[in-house]
Amino acid sequence: MIVTPSIHRRHFLVGAAGTAAGAATLAMTGMSFPVRAQDSGALPAYADWKNPDALIKHSELTLETKRGAISTSVVTPNDIVFVRNNIAPPGEDILADRDAWEVSLEGVANPRTMQVGEMKSLGVDTVATVLQCSGNGRGLFDHKASGSPWITGAAGCVLWSGVPVRSVAEELGGVVDGARFMTSTGGETIPNDVEPKDVMVERSVPVENLETAILAWEMNGAPIPLAHGGPLRMIVPGYYGVNNVKYVKRVAFTETETDAKIQRSGYRLRPVDVSGAPDQPSMWNMKVKSWVTHPLMDTESGRVQIHGVAFGGINPVAKVEVSIDAGQSWQEARLAGPDLGRFAWRVFVFPADLAAGTHTIASRATDAEGNVQEEETEPNHRGYDYSGWRRLAVDVTVA
Amino acid sequence: MIVTPSIHRRHFLVGAAGTAAGAATLAMTGMSFPVRAQDSGALPAYADWKNPDALIKHSELTLETKRGAISTSVVTPNDIVFVRNNIAPPGEDILADRDAWEVSLEGVANPRTMQVGEMKSLGVDTVATVLQCSGNGRGLFDHKASGSPWITGAAGCVLWSGVPVRSVAEELGGVVDGARFMTSTGGETIPNDVEPKDVMVERSVPVENLETAILAWEMNGAPIPLAHGGPLRMIVPGYYGVNNVKYVKRVAFTETETDAKIQRSGYRLRPVDVSGAPDQPSMWNMKVKSWVTHPLMDTESGRVQIHGVAFGGINPVAKVEVSIDAGQSWQEARLAGPDLGRFAWRVFVFPADLAAGTHTIASRATDAEGNVQEEETEPNHRGYDYSGWRRLAVDVTVA
Repeated sequence: MIVTPSIHRRHFLVGAAGTAAGAATLAMTGMSFPVRAQDSGALPAYADWKNPDALIKHSELTLETKRGAISTSVVTPNDIVFVRNNIAPPGEDILADRDAWEVSLEGVANPRTMQVGEMKSLGVDTVATVLQCSGNGRGLFDHKASGSPWITGAAGCVLWSGVPVRSVAEELGGVVDGARFMTSTGGETIPNDVEPKDVMVERSVPVENLETAILAWEMNGAPIPLAHGGPLRMIVPGYYGVNNVKYVKRVAFTETETDAKIQRSGYRLRPVDVSGAPDQPSMWNMKVKSWVTHPLMDTESGRVQIHGVAFGGINPVAKVEVSIDAGQSWQEARLAGPDLGRFAWRVFVFPADLAAGTHTIASRATDAEGNVQEEETEPNHRGYDYSGWRRLAVDVTVA
Repeated sequence: MIVTPSIHRRHFLVGAAGTAAGAATLAMTGMSFPVRAQDSGALPAYADWKNPDALIKHSELTLETKRGAISTSVVTPNDIVFVRNNIAPPGEDILADRDAWEVSLEGVANPRTMQVGEMKSLGVDTVATVLQCSGNGRGLFDHKASGSPWITGAAGCVLWSGVPVRSVAEELGGVVDGARFMTSTGGETIPNDVEPKDVMVERSVPVENLETAILAWEMNGAPIPLAHGGPLRMIVPGYYGVNNVKYVKRVAFTETETDAKIQRSGYRLRPVDVSGAPDQPSMWNMKVKSWVTHPLMDTESGRVQIHGVAFGGINPVAKVEVSIDAGQSWQEARLAGPDLGRFAWRVFVFPADLAAGTHTIASRATDAEGNVQEEETEPNHRGYDYSGWRRLAVDVTVA
């Protein structure tokens, strides 16, 4: 049902940041691309309600949204939003009584457990955020980092509704003095034969995020599905997906970051072949980034409305430029449709008359702080944080 | 999956506009309510992908969204959006090649047919609109007007993406002089045994609407489903649903309104038992309106976050007030979540500490032009245009 053009042909201009157009090009066909090779098999049971035509299955725990399935309506519908679980989700039974889900609230004046039903009486707000996996774009690096080779589709723009974390903390007398982090723990079942700290999903973010964070029970107008963290998910706007802890069962305001492996050494930005350590940057707020979602296929028409998505992490997007000549020249695109706030993405549109031949179409976003999307992203061990406009570009041939 | 509390108990304060609280009350239980009595049977095939738990089936052509299924995420997901077709939809085969759908464009300098594929090259924009049936609230009138007895659920807030009508008109040399209306014709199949003008869905709206209208192919990020008018629907922001013609196959800029029955005598605001005629007001732009979506059930907790939706038709909402004493006193609610533009609805939230007893909870919206939602709506023959806050109120008993 969803129109999902595949990437018919891609060219990479390989090189370090600042390399001029005209560097060696590496043609890759859709068929030989690793993303395609791994795309097989039925959707996993917990996500079998999703639209299989819009998704690429990398594994039972990782489903990527096809690049062309992201269209111009700003919000990404639930049935095409990507899935990435670190460990298997809990059973569907945790959704049987959503209001009874219990969260341990710690690091406040009056710590205690609280059920979702009570949270619903404390406050309601809605925030639109870009939900993006830290590894989105991993497949664009050359060094074959371990993990799913996402290209653009481990990202979506979602409306979350729930209680502001601030309102919950106030209800419990406020955050304790000295708290520097907000630490959230997921409700996944830890297998018996492993050290819990090695697999548990527990993430710490700077405590300031309680001002914008939401404990959400609703995703795009529906109760949050199990695949996306229902009955309750911690939403940290502007932060990479892993910090948006699913099935959240504990929120603690702490002096130190958790020593769970996923925080201590995991999700750290580090040079290739260097081990993870707490002094390396954590995958917290996202960088300014954009990519074209149309056209992706060769076309016969000379005129085309180039469109795509752009976001700035914790900053709003100020402008998006489009190039149809592999970055030699740029023109400003129009931001189309409603602005859902600084944590959402914007849809950009740029009309172009494309002459016969092959055009490398790129986009480059600038956020309100003046940060410009980079041309190339320095390789890092796990292939995180990709945002380079050059490899996100697409080649389109006009007949 | 969707939490859909039923209306446990409702009270109507029956009386003309301006009647003070304290008028005779008529208690109605959810079970005896006509909406419930008609709610039976499986969803029709063309809408079988929808969430049956969130919908009330009035007939094969009319599905209402349950009041409590509208939550706080602003956008109404496709699978719970109401359905109202005037005649049976065309076959699913019209979706086989969406880009090949053809529209006759008339009343422009260079009239011709155009396919959706070409429209996509002319421009792209997205608008969020409240889609509301003219008869939404018909079930709240006393005079048992013919048609579905909708209460609140023939309405949703939807993101539409497509080409601005303005861009299409410009491509064809502009609108002809003297055009006063934009007339859209639906692509339904007209049965052989009837006079086409009596059943065709053809609606005229003032030509000025071409400035905001969109020929849409996308609904909340997905290709428009057949039930909602795919492959192409005319969207006239701020106007009642009937003007948003499905399967649109002709758009004409005309000097006069169409003489199709649905325009000539149908969808006219007229006194009870008076026949429809062209000199009566047509069901065009919507009035300022709001209603509470939570709480709808009796509750044990004294504290509750009252929330609902509010819109102003072609005007943005300026404020929403909430009353917990049947309109004797009002307090301003907070508008929560992103503002999707003047044609969208806003979610309002008002925290209240409800003492034991029964509370009649009402909401009253004011638009940016200063128009205030009316207390009661004068009966009209077909039960259109209901917006009275008094009958839209809900009774909640706190134990």
